[in-house]
Amino acid sequence: MKHSFGSDNHSGVHPQIMAAIQNANENFETAYGEDKYTKEVLGKLETLLGGDCTAFFVFNGTGANIVALQGFLRSYNSVLAPATAHINVDECGAVEKISSARIVPLEATDGKVSPAQVKKGLTGFGHQHNAQPKILSISQPTELGTLYTPQEIKELADLMHSHGCYLHVDGSRISNAAESLGMPIKEFISDCGVDALSFGGTKNGLLIGEAVVIFHRPENTLPDNNGIPMNAQNMEAARNLQYLRKQTTQLYSKSRFIAAQFDEYMKNDLYLKLAGQSNNMAKYLAKSLEGIKEVTISKAVESNAVFATIPVWLSEELNKKHYFYVWDEETNEVRWMCSFNTRKEDIDEFVEDLKSIISSHK
Amino acid sequence: MKHSFGSDNHSGVHPQIMAAIQNANENFETAYGEDKYTKEVLGKLETLLGGDCTAFFVFNGTGANIVALQGFLRSYNSVLAPATAHINVDECGAVEKISSARIVPLEATDGKVSPAQVKKGLTGFGHQHNAQPKILSISQPTELGTLYTPQEIKELADLMHSHGCYLHVDGSRISNAAESLGMPIKEFISDCGVDALSFGGTKNGLLIGEAVVIFHRPENTLPDNNGIPMNAQNMEAARNLQYLRKQTTQLYSKSRFIAAQFDEYMKNDLYLKLAGQSNNMAKYLAKSLEGIKEVTISKAVESNAVFATIPVWLSEELNKKHYFYVWDEETNEVRWMCSFNTRKEDIDEFVEDLKSIISSHK
Amino acid sequence: MKHSFGSDNHSGVHPQIMAAIQNANENFETAYGEDKYTKEVLGKLETLLGGDCTAFFVFNGTGANIVALQGFLRSYNSVLAPATAHINVDECGAVEKISSARIVPLEATDGKVSPAQVKKGLTGFGHQHNAQPKILSISQPTELGTLYTPQEIKELADLMHSHGCYLHVDGSRISNAAESLGMPIKEFISDCGVDALSFGGTKNGLLIGEAVVIFHRPENTLPDNNGIPMNAQNMEAARNLQYLRKQTTQLYSKSRFIAAQFDEYMKNDLYLKLAGQSNNMAKYLAKSLEGIKEVTISKAVESNAVFATIPVWLSEELNKKHYFYVWDEETNEVRWMCSFNTRKEDIDEFVEDLKSIISSHK
Amino acid sequence: MKHSFGSDNHSGVHPQIMAAIQNANENFETAYGEDKYTKEVLGKLETLLGGDCTAFFVFNGTGANIVALQGFLRSYNSVLAPATAHINVDECGAVEKISSARIVPLEATDGKVSPAQVKKGLTGFGHQHNAQPKILSISQPTELGTLYTPQEIKELADLMHSHGCYLHVDGSRISNAAESLGMPIKEFISDCGVDALSFGGTKNGLLIGEAVVIFHRPENTLPDNNGIPMNAQNMEAARNLQYLRKQTTQLYSKSRFIAAQFDEYMKNDLYLKLAGQSNNMAKYLAKSLEGIKEVTISKAVESNAVFATIPVWLSEELNKKHYFYVWDEETNEVRWMCSFNTRKEDIDEFVEDLKSIISSHK
Repeated sequence: MKHSFGSDNHSGVHPQIMAAIQNANENFETAYGEDKYTKEVLGKLETLLGGDCTAFFVFNGTGANIVALQGFLRSYNSVLAPATAHINVDECGAVEKISSARIVPLEATDGKVSPAQVKKGLTGFGHQHNAQPKILSISQPTELGTLYTPQEIKELADLMHSHGCYLHVDGSRISNAAESLGMPIKEFISDCGVDALSFGGTKNGLLIGEAVVIFHRPENTLPDNNGIPMNAQNMEAARNLQYLRKQTTQLYSKSRFIAAQFDEYMKNDLYLKLAGQSNNMAKYLAKSLEGIKEVTISKAVESNAVFATIPVWLSEELNKKHYFYVWDEETNEVRWMCSFNTRKEDIDEFVEDLKSIISSHK
Repeated sequence: MKHSFGSDNHSGVHPQIMAAIQNANENFETAYGEDKYTKEVLGKLETLLGGDCTAFFVFNGTGANIVALQGFLRSYNSVLAPATAHINVDECGAVEKISSARIVPLEATDGKVSPAQVKKGLTGFGHQHNAQPKILSISQPTELGTLYTPQEIKELADLMHSHGCYLHVDGSRISNAAESLGMPIKEFISDCGVDALSFGGTKNGLLIGEAVVIFHRPENTLPDNNGIPMNAQNMEAARNLQYLRKQTTQLYSKSRFIAAQFDEYMKNDLYLKLAGQSNNMAKYLAKSLEGIKEVTISKAVESNAVFATIPVWLSEELNKKHYFYVWDEETNEVRWMCSFNTRKEDIDEFVEDLKSIISSHK
Repeated sequence: MKHSFGSDNHSGVHPQIMAAIQNANENFETAYGEDKYTKEVLGKLETLLGGDCTAFFVFNGTGANIVALQGFLRSYNSVLAPATAHINVDECGAVEKISSARIVPLEATDGKVSPAQVKKGLTGFGHQHNAQPKILSISQPTELGTLYTPQEIKELADLMHSHGCYLHVDGSRISNAAESLGMPIKEFISDCGVDALSFGGTKNGLLIGEAVVIFHRPENTLPDNNGIPMNAQNMEAARNLQYLRKQTTQLYSKSRFIAAQFDEYMKNDLYLKLAGQSNNMAKYLAKSLEGIKEVTISKAVESNAVFATIPVWLSEELNKKHYFYVWDEETNEVRWMCSFNTRKEDIDEFVEDLKSIISSHK
Repeated sequence: MKHSFGSDNHSGVHPQIMAAIQNANENFETAYGEDKYTKEVLGKLETLLGGDCTAFFVFNGTGANIVALQGFLRSYNSVLAPATAHINVDECGAVEKISSARIVPLEATDGKVSPAQVKKGLTGFGHQHNAQPKILSISQPTELGTLYTPQEIKELADLMHSHGCYLHVDGSRISNAAESLGMPIKEFISDCGVDALSFGGTKNGLLIGEAVVIFHRPENTLPDNNGIPMNAQNMEAARNLQYLRKQTTQLYSKSRFIAAQFDEYMKNDLYLKLAGQSNNMAKYLAKSLEGIKEVTISKAVESNAVFATIPVWLSEELNKKHYFYVWDEETNEVRWMCSFNTRKEDIDEFVEDLKSIISSHK
């Protein structure tokens, strides 16, 4: 396929990443993360995130989320998450199966939850008939392309901590968030009190590879909702995630090949450059659609996705030439996803085709 | 590291495989196995195995085993396996956690189980206090480098089927078995009645990638131990493994990159050539050690591993220059693993070093 | 406590049931259901339900529900249930933990779901990212005291079967439903296509004891949503529930003492007489409250519960003398539950106290 | 059946226990342990065990064990247990299913494990491929009727604690142990460092009911094997067992009826008197068999079980008149279990029948 707006994992591997894989393919290396690359690159990633954290490589986003969450969960806990969260709608019940805990879906607005919306799930504490809330999982950017401000993330972290609970961020597109916010990841993650992060790579030009990061949070000395001092719980997660990763089938024997990709990805801010391209293309697409009355941009364009409601005849006709998904069949809201290798001319061609369909429809 | 006898996953990626990955890195492709490569290559793999089976790509060996086994298990079932099996000793309890079933370890001889040894685990049928045996999992070659003959596999399959149970083969090094036996995989797997196969790639020159194969077995019409006709159970597994794969976090978004590797791997029998190299190097190593009285080859050398008992001083000294593991600390049995890229000169150097340590010890 | 409107499990044990327990306490009996009582009484229960079904005794309602549901579930399946269902809100995540499947909560009206509401959960079939719907669990009567008509149950069963799915009824108060509908349980359960029933006893005068009933449904020959013929799946459940019961810790060693209670319970329709008393007291309570403008009956009184919205001052004051729960704090809806041993004078006293609080409030 | 040597749960309910149940059947009580009986009786039980512990009522022995163990386990942990333990051979894989952790069976001698035997399971610490040992579960008395001395229990507790692990005692017949050792339970449980106890009742004259007890162990301040201070882990278990109990379907609505039994059971040491009767009957049986050369007592008679190897013809003939089980078919070892209501004349009749079979066989 020449180009796809279907998903940013429809794109391939960035050439520099591919070269890094090849360069790591020399000689023999010990396996399962004991190689010379893995430890060093994880150190760089921990530094990028402000230190005082422990990082682990995993294969994919579902794996990253589930490994991260398990670090904090007992089976009688619940994970609060926006109803639209990937872990709630797109992981086939994997969180429940593998963690044994349940998800409590929260009403959300454009993919985001406010403290008020989260509070509705913070109930049942101490009542033996209720799963005990333990961690909130939000996505940054959200599945609907929107962003939390650092202040909003901090408020959610504070809210959770004040209830003896934790905050996880599903950052499968975290680089797009950083680029769009124009600030280091550290400033809206580590500095805001986040306890665990899924750090994505595959959707932004990697062949394969994500990371799970547990922040140590020595400052959180109060007991959590299970009665364990919060910083002791964070350290338990940091220390034992290796076992949870293995059990969750997310331990890679030839770990050096993920490490090498991440090394290149962080070098000279490649991750930001790639995210910048997809973010810019989304903005350019939105701008190019301005003034077309058949197209209503339905979500704020804050990362690399453009959501729009369009007539059914338009999406059907457009889909014949361009790959994308109808996100909400009731409103015919579509999602157009830009990738690190989406080019200006891909957008131009797309918009031209869209306009031409509209003209011929009249 | 120049060379390692530690494991065949200490080696890197074969150049042809690397090239295949690069060639697949063109344009955009749909994700999660819907791309143009995946379906076609799975079809080739199914054909290689004799047809009438369904194949799925996964990331790694632990994932392959657990996804395959789940296809046949209810939580009240048990998996019979040699006590030395990878699923029993090296997967951190992942089978129990993810399948909810239990493993019943069997006494084994050099990694293999005989029908008589398996029968000891085929008990408790119909007794509500006992986990109900459901599937036997053997490794071919075994974790100790030994091989089952086709006849032995057939006997185990027949034994299991006659008890309403199934047979799974952990083939993380299945290519080494085929090359060593000198026969197509089909002849000692599909033709012998195996129900599920973990088909390995990573240990034989792939960057990443394994496959799970469910054989349909239309001939098995009798009810299994849970009361379901055996062929209906095989079809249930074949049909629903996609969900188990997703839940087990083993679904790869950029599936084309595993497919492309497998395509190259099967083309012109590359998988056999690579396995041939590691098998031959193991034989050459064993032969080179003949007559050295400090070294006792302890297991039949039937694939790419050489097991030997040697004095502690020898293993300690040798370990300073060459990477390998002590397999059994009680007997000081060591494992020397050969890889697709182990060369004759690596063996020669190793044996020379070993001899020189012995001389200087005297 | 003299009397409680808090729950029907606040009441004790009916004298005839207590006598039956004592009568069974003679001599020795084999354990775990192999005694002379259990098999015979289960047979009577199966007959009461129309035959062609298999019944099992368990300890409690949560156990009954979870054991029953597991008979039909694989981990990648989902259980559809009204958001207000006991399994969704009052079982501490036990379904998810023990079955490994997830619950999909459905919008409900007064505790009941309509076919249209259920259809919203019947989505994602065949899509590997989605948990596959497998069974609907409804309560009869519902947690809000309302009842499904036989016709409504049949429609739900037909809807589920037509999607290759199943229907479970949580009948923790099934006797109240039968008494209120004025028809044998068989007519609104077995005859309507229900696949599995939790048959309650503890809330209607038993010391302890519930039953799980799996209906064989030989007529359902089409493949279910996992590809298994529906009647084969029902038989798998019927045959293997004993193991699921044991694993779920619901197998009672001295099973004769549950059997003896059930025997008495079914004899001369004691279960209907006890349910009649609690149903009638609920009706009498509702009637006694007519015309009191501070009290609005908020749900149809169709079994032994009266739901009403009342002013906060009234519930607070009334709670000092009478035990009951505020069901919904936002609307100050309260639940008044009648039991098999609630007497007319308990109601009279309650209503008098309520009226007196109102008068003195003015 | 007049009398059974099959199991102590073949006996019924002691009359005083039955009376206590009836006495508690007055009026209404709040449910799920909030009644006036439960808290008070749990307090008495905690006092009996030396205080500084938290007790919970559950239904049955399997439930007690699994709820207790879960208090200490993460899914990547393992439970060490004698291969002959009830949790390993008679619970249908329930521990693995419900706790998600695995059992590592240990070689045992007459049902008991020595520190040396336990040490063989204390391996793999810190190695990500291995389930991490976390708790040892022993039975007192064992399933083979033997007893640990207090000194032996202390040594096992110390061994486990020194490895950052815990000790659980399956005391389904704990009263028999106390009576036989002639010392309060406290002295061989609490004082010896045990972390969790399953305290049985059903096998010693109760209708239904067991307790789980978590000892607080404030003295254990070192980090456990998961990195949590041991006393914090014990408190986590004590605090959160209520949720694990609910999820494990072991929460009884009409809790007062278990509490009332336990109250009576502890009053005037009824539990010891009943255990004394069954212990004495076992001793009397063993003594009565002395000198019969066809009968070899095979295990030390230290509680209420007599194990003996006898000829097949003898067990077959004897089984026609008396109910008991062949424990080990290979050696024809049988188990004769005495109960709280086994009488001297039951033994006399049994021995007479045995002798008469022997005579007529000659």
